[in-house]
Amino acid sequence: MSGVIYDRVALIGLGLIASSMYWAIKRAGLAGEVTGYARSQETRGTARRIGLCDRVCDSVAEAVKDADLVVLAVPVGAMEEVARAIGPHLKPGATVTDVGSVKRAVIQSVAPHLPDGVHFVPGHPLAGTEHSGPESGFAELFEDRWCMLVPVDNTDEAAIARLKSLWQGFGSNVEIMDSDHHDLVLAVTSHAPHLIAYTMVGVADDLRRVTDREVVQYSAAGFRDFTRIAASDPTMWRDVFLNNRDATLEILGRFTEELFALQRAIRRGDGDHLHDYFTRTRAIRRSIIEAGQDTDAPDFGRKKTPR
Amino acid sequence: MSGVIYDRVALIGLGLIASSMYWAIKRAGLAGEVTGYARSQETRGTARRIGLCDRVCDSVAEAVKDADLVVLAVPVGAMEEVARAIGPHLKPGATVTDVGSVKRAVIQSVAPHLPDGVHFVPGHPLAGTEHSGPESGFAELFEDRWCMLVPVDNTDEAAIARLKSLWQGFGSNVEIMDSDHHDLVLAVTSHAPHLIAYTMVGVADDLRRVTDREVVQYSAAGFRDFTRIAASDPTMWRDVFLNNRDATLEILGRFTEELFALQRAIRRGDGDHLHDYFTRTRAIRRSIIEAGQDTDAPDFGRKKTPR
Repeated sequence: MSGVIYDRVALIGLGLIASSMYWAIKRAGLAGEVTGYARSQETRGTARRIGLCDRVCDSVAEAVKDADLVVLAVPVGAMEEVARAIGPHLKPGATVTDVGSVKRAVIQSVAPHLPDGVHFVPGHPLAGTEHSGPESGFAELFEDRWCMLVPVDNTDEAAIARLKSLWQGFGSNVEIMDSDHHDLVLAVTSHAPHLIAYTMVGVADDLRRVTDREVVQYSAAGFRDFTRIAASDPTMWRDVFLNNRDATLEILGRFTEELFALQRAIRRGDGDHLHDYFTRTRAIRRSIIEAGQDTDAPDFGRKKTPR
Repeated sequence: MSGVIYDRVALIGLGLIASSMYWAIKRAGLAGEVTGYARSQETRGTARRIGLCDRVCDSVAEAVKDADLVVLAVPVGAMEEVARAIGPHLKPGATVTDVGSVKRAVIQSVAPHLPDGVHFVPGHPLAGTEHSGPESGFAELFEDRWCMLVPVDNTDEAAIARLKSLWQGFGSNVEIMDSDHHDLVLAVTSHAPHLIAYTMVGVADDLRRVTDREVVQYSAAGFRDFTRIAASDPTMWRDVFLNNRDATLEILGRFTEELFALQRAIRRGDGDHLHDYFTRTRAIRRSIIEAGQDTDAPDFGRKKTPR
């Protein structure tokens, strides 16, 4: 788990995930040199200023030159353009991976642009915060989190094993999964919850009779929990929904069905239905805590922020 | 703000809120003696074991005898029964308050049972955690949180001011509000978000193709945030929805409307609509942090729980 796994790694896109990967690589000495590229000059400037990447390059071709591992860490909707740009410059035998939250659409848009002799091992670390950009990364982000690897048919086993050991070197658990199943699991555990949070926050923002001040002031009664995930990067999430459309809409359909059943129970005064439902949902929280995927500290162990 | 505010306080119901009130009273020396009563013998036993209340009583009549302040801290649906039981035993000039999450229904069910000469000042501290029961309380729960006081017509101003100073002694900010507005504000900031979280957790729990193990294992991608509030006390929440029916259903109607509009944007591939919406919701998070109602630490500052 320790020692150099790749001589040269190229990070394309320098946001929360790529910057956290950089610090995690450095902490454990998992790569020789790490190059980085971001489309925005401002982001490249920030990266140079904070020492993010051993070398920040001004072109994507320069960044991927001689890289043994190329990580596509851009919004899902930008993957195809990046793949097209790097294709001709990839080293034979290199591995290309990505960190996109959707896998089927990414595979369809990236794979055709990669030359023979390059290994494509799509990936997705289930980790993140509501913060974004090159300054938001930290080495611990992936610890005890899961990283999905979603290899396409006939992918070289050694290339998969090597990428797996990198993620394990970050402290992650790795699971191999096919892309359709990945996209459904994520629709349930991530995409639908995000859309629902965005919706609830939008509704609250919209209400005229309840002023903005009140929504903000009294948010600790539950609403504020939704605002954290609804503060996630808009571009990233737009692309997620557009590229995992069917699975997300399916889960939202199920959600609406259940919501209507609960609304009906409220309207009819069916307390037993509500109580049974709320008792059942309590158990799943316990399982998540036992699986080490959340803290049992009250209120997520939030620190008070005195004004 | 310091010194004894009430010679004798009676806490009826010994869950998260009442136990936190007890520790907050003791910390600041805000009352002479605090009595406590809970319907369940087991809860009374726990209270005695952990030193919750100066005196735990085996009847509600005994608990409220000679009390200057009586706090009804039971689920909203149990308020009427408690009010009926204590009515004949209240000291003339005493103040009765409650901590229920719904105000109009509580006023309607409690007020008729209180004798003349007793001041009724309904209240609602906007504070809580997903934990419940006598052992879940802590003195800091109300710090920098808001407590709503919802006095009925012609309530004695001195009685209101005195109760206000108790909540300020807990570190809370106090707001006076009428009951209908309270119930609408809470439907937005608390009741609808809770029902939505319960629903999403129920849907995930239900899915057959995605196994339980997967929902739990991959919950850090967003879903786990919903499970915290969906782990709240089922009885309390059943009563909230049954007793704030109209406002909750109104907000859920607005929510569904917005959700459908976003689903339609996903189905049609309208990325601009999604991006605009997600950008707008980001701003409200910033306001909540600036108002001291949440932490800016990534991921709520959650501590990792190594397995």
